[in-house]
Amino acid sequence: MGKILRVDMSERTVKVEDVPEKYKTLGGRALTSQIVYDEVPPACEPLGPYNKIVIAPGVLAGTNAPSSGRVSVGGKSPLTGGIKEANAGTPVSQKLGRLQIKAIIVEGQAKDGSYLLKLNKDGAEFLPADDLKGKVTREINKELFGKYGEKVGIMTTGVAGDYKMSMAGICFNDPEGRASRYSGRGGLGAVLGSKGLKAMVVDDTGAPGVEMKDKDLFKQGQKKMVEALRSHDVTKPGGALNSFGTAVLVNILNEAGGYPTNNFRTGQFDDASKTGGEALAEAVEKRGGGTMGHGCSPGCIIRCSNVYPNEDGSEFTSCMEYESVWSLGANCGIGNLDHIAKLVDQCNEYGVDTIEAGVTLGVAMDIGIVPFGDGSGAIKLMDEIFNNTPLGRILGNGAWFTGKAYGHTRIPVVKRQGMPAYEPRAVKGIGVTYITTPQGADHTAGYTIAPEILSVGGKVDPLSPEGKIDLSRAFQATTAFIDSSGYCLFIAFAVLDFPSGMEGLAETVNAVLGTNWTVDDIPKQGMETLRLEWEFNKKAGFTKEDDRPPEFMRYEKLPPHNQVFDIADADLDRMWEEFC
Amino acid sequence: MGKILRVDMSERTVKVEDVPEKYKTLGGRALTSQIVYDEVPPACEPLGPYNKIVIAPGVLAGTNAPSSGRVSVGGKSPLTGGIKEANAGTPVSQKLGRLQIKAIIVEGQAKDGSYLLKLNKDGAEFLPADDLKGKVTREINKELFGKYGEKVGIMTTGVAGDYKMSMAGICFNDPEGRASRYSGRGGLGAVLGSKGLKAMVVDDTGAPGVEMKDKDLFKQGQKKMVEALRSHDVTKPGGALNSFGTAVLVNILNEAGGYPTNNFRTGQFDDASKTGGEALAEAVEKRGGGTMGHGCSPGCIIRCSNVYPNEDGSEFTSCMEYESVWSLGANCGIGNLDHIAKLVDQCNEYGVDTIEAGVTLGVAMDIGIVPFGDGSGAIKLMDEIFNNTPLGRILGNGAWFTGKAYGHTRIPVVKRQGMPAYEPRAVKGIGVTYITTPQGADHTAGYTIAPEILSVGGKVDPLSPEGKIDLSRAFQATTAFIDSSGYCLFIAFAVLDFPSGMEGLAETVNAVLGTNWTVDDIPKQGMETLRLEWEFNKKAGFTKEDDRPPEFMRYEKLPPHNQVFDIADADLDRMWEEFC
Repeated sequence: MGKILRVDMSERTVKVEDVPEKYKTLGGRALTSQIVYDEVPPACEPLGPYNKIVIAPGVLAGTNAPSSGRVSVGGKSPLTGGIKEANAGTPVSQKLGRLQIKAIIVEGQAKDGSYLLKLNKDGAEFLPADDLKGKVTREINKELFGKYGEKVGIMTTGVAGDYKMSMAGICFNDPEGRASRYSGRGGLGAVLGSKGLKAMVVDDTGAPGVEMKDKDLFKQGQKKMVEALRSHDVTKPGGALNSFGTAVLVNILNEAGGYPTNNFRTGQFDDASKTGGEALAEAVEKRGGGTMGHGCSPGCIIRCSNVYPNEDGSEFTSCMEYESVWSLGANCGIGNLDHIAKLVDQCNEYGVDTIEAGVTLGVAMDIGIVPFGDGSGAIKLMDEIFNNTPLGRILGNGAWFTGKAYGHTRIPVVKRQGMPAYEPRAVKGIGVTYITTPQGADHTAGYTIAPEILSVGGKVDPLSPEGKIDLSRAFQATTAFIDSSGYCLFIAFAVLDFPSGMEGLAETVNAVLGTNWTVDDIPKQGMETLRLEWEFNKKAGFTKEDDRPPEFMRYEKLPPHNQVFDIADADLDRMWEEFC
Repeated sequence: MGKILRVDMSERTVKVEDVPEKYKTLGGRALTSQIVYDEVPPACEPLGPYNKIVIAPGVLAGTNAPSSGRVSVGGKSPLTGGIKEANAGTPVSQKLGRLQIKAIIVEGQAKDGSYLLKLNKDGAEFLPADDLKGKVTREINKELFGKYGEKVGIMTTGVAGDYKMSMAGICFNDPEGRASRYSGRGGLGAVLGSKGLKAMVVDDTGAPGVEMKDKDLFKQGQKKMVEALRSHDVTKPGGALNSFGTAVLVNILNEAGGYPTNNFRTGQFDDASKTGGEALAEAVEKRGGGTMGHGCSPGCIIRCSNVYPNEDGSEFTSCMEYESVWSLGANCGIGNLDHIAKLVDQCNEYGVDTIEAGVTLGVAMDIGIVPFGDGSGAIKLMDEIFNNTPLGRILGNGAWFTGKAYGHTRIPVVKRQGMPAYEPRAVKGIGVTYITTPQGADHTAGYTIAPEILSVGGKVDPLSPEGKIDLSRAFQATTAFIDSSGYCLFIAFAVLDFPSGMEGLAETVNAVLGTNWTVDDIPKQGMETLRLEWEFNKKAGFTKEDDRPPEFMRYEKLPPHNQVFDIADADLDRMWEEFC
């Protein structure tokens, strides 16, 4: 059956609602985007009373489908001004799934004070949470696990959410309770801050579990998915992601000349090899106490997360992702893994998106606030955010805001969201994804890196502008479906290369929802989600001028290939022509 | 004949160009907007290499038409992201007119260093100007007049321009050489900063003077205009503007409940009478040493400017305009004229728009950075701008940016430009102008205060939403023509009430240009300028969602009338329907 919880922060009430018919076959991103489209006035102030936050576990969250522990958070983004969905892998998604909560809609604004929402099988309760404000998330999680038991799930914001900064993410716990898994992008933590919802504790004790429409079909699909994930070189146990984490990509992208360095001034980083997945694994091995092949949520086969140790073997931080190692490393010219780990830890503790933080620091270095490569300087800048100083206020609102504060024009953003770890001038399909996704610059929205760099799902020339619109569109469509399923996006490697994996994706979802989607329906369903997101943005005032690369990437040639971004505006406009 | 100077800052060359046929009947705003439309890519970075600054004296500048000393500056605004024209009354306009310079187009960007452009009848010369950076404008003008003689005209930017802040204006001298007349709005000073053009010195010795197509017609039109200005109660010698300055409006708007106070929290200010034009005149009278009825440029009949004295009778600052007295006074809850004068002087000295500065301080006070009414605190905040601190960087980028930095949602802006001194909820026609003008919130774009408050050009109820779209459109059209003529906008009082004054406007312009425009052509010509501006903004990515009031004005009732802004979005959309 499932239910929707409507949380009114103005009145501090929680209403349990039936799931409307049209929402029944939706989950994750498809559901958050649909509800945001239906309920949030597109032109509203993101931090004002009319915005909403929607939290929805993916369709399969709470089942034992492999690597399916994603939860989506949606709303209007204070960073981009458009629709936003950001998902995280965390046990919280599975607990929500088992409680048969399809979505939580947070609306209104508390007149004063901050609150914690406690959910269990019997209902919901508000508790005062002013004491959690101003604290680091590690401390918050420790207090809440101490109070509510180690088996609950926790969602919280950090100080960046308290301060309503546009780089504030929403933090979920990992299986061991770390405050380390983020719906990071787009500043949705600031929206929670504006509403006065500081944290949520989810207790699934006695939960009924996910209702399955067809158990046999589920078993069949699950088996296909497990086999696909276990067979693919990228996702298999002992494979690339499992052995070296996502940071296995560092050396690969660096070699391709597409690894943005020093605020996107070059495509190669001298210290790449010191900060890649292999170096990480070596440090974990040598120091002891860390973990490679860690899982962000129970039931993951891929297990690409990690726990990075201090030199003495004590735990330092989790997780040293490719994106974080890049944004806080190469993009800032920082080649010291311990400096990077400290910066990652600060992001986790203060409640900010690691990508936006690193892109912001890169812009700050380009401006000259601290020099490129100055790890200690970068750490001090992060503390400005924690201390809520005027400089922290600038930085905490992201890369675009920081550049704008200083009249700087080399700002690598699209729709004001910082670009991730692939250079659009050297890997042009991912550039098209950054530029055209309704989400603002986001690699996960259509990961064309697979065929452009990894020869997964085909093989295309990263430097060529040819065919990249259609390539990105296809990836964006399938991705929107995966983001709704609850599966981790990394199943894409296996389902792109193995037809049986794609069947497993469709079958497991059909088994839960009672739908009859074929593999051909996957991109079609995804396009429906994209259509809503695109329409929301249009109503919010977006035009084709928002689907443009940063101006400097049109005239500044990127070493080592010395290319500009050369896909014409008119071609970019083709992306969404079917929606116009 | 006339000529256009094309100033390339990248190459540091000045090219003298003939005036293309289609520009020959344009001047002031009509010409800056046309050239910006023709030459600036609408979606470009305002502080990047593709933006341009266009400086054009009005058609009549340099003639002896009364009150016609306006110069327009145009470009793409770093504050609004749209097209911008900001004009000032200054002898510089008249010198440009006499040199037969129709327009100066500043393009490119100096690779390093700042430069001064020296113009005279023989040509143009670049001189290094790095030594002028970081100085207050009073000092800059003193140095330049010392070096180039007291009879030159000076255009400069202040530190805000050096720092490329979005509230940076462009400063022109008044007849006595004060650095006090501003093309203030929209941050065009930052664009000059990005180009490396720090200052311009205009020497009109031996200039040929304005070429007149029909001297008799000019005399006839000039006489009509002089008579109209001398007859109208608002504009005549010894009339309202001449006796009390523009701040004569303080008590009038306060009585109407439309005087925005404490960041637009109420429509009345307890200390209004202490800070109005009457109080100003009293201080000037009592202290001695000041001037009421000062002129911003030679040949002005209205003479609404003033010089405000210190308590000891020495000169303090110029000019205490209605807008400045409001923005830095009531809007900040500051009721001490000397505090306000200090803030006005800081704006002049640092090179910022007084309206944007005051609206920004109001937002900062609403946030709680300093309390409302704290004049000394406000003065210290202005010094943060001069000192280029991180807080100064926030404030220097204007009201929207400051609110955004702190996650604040009570920000009284349209298109990110701070609202002037009339409350849209209490005077709804001016609200329509703020919302729909391509310029961002700007009272001068269509001054419906005339009929709504002053019973000039008719009489309408300020609180009623009825008929305000058409009223604002008519005012916007005529205004665009006046902004092109070189006349001060304040001739509008006289030409609206006296048909002969309107004839004088058409005839003097026809006499210079050789056109045959009737009084009916005046709004038609103005609409052509508006059309270009609207189209530029559309190509820059503006939509009808940019023609909206701040969200809080839709639900927060303004005392004392307890009204919201109640003109529907659909009605606002009617404004430009003929352009769609």
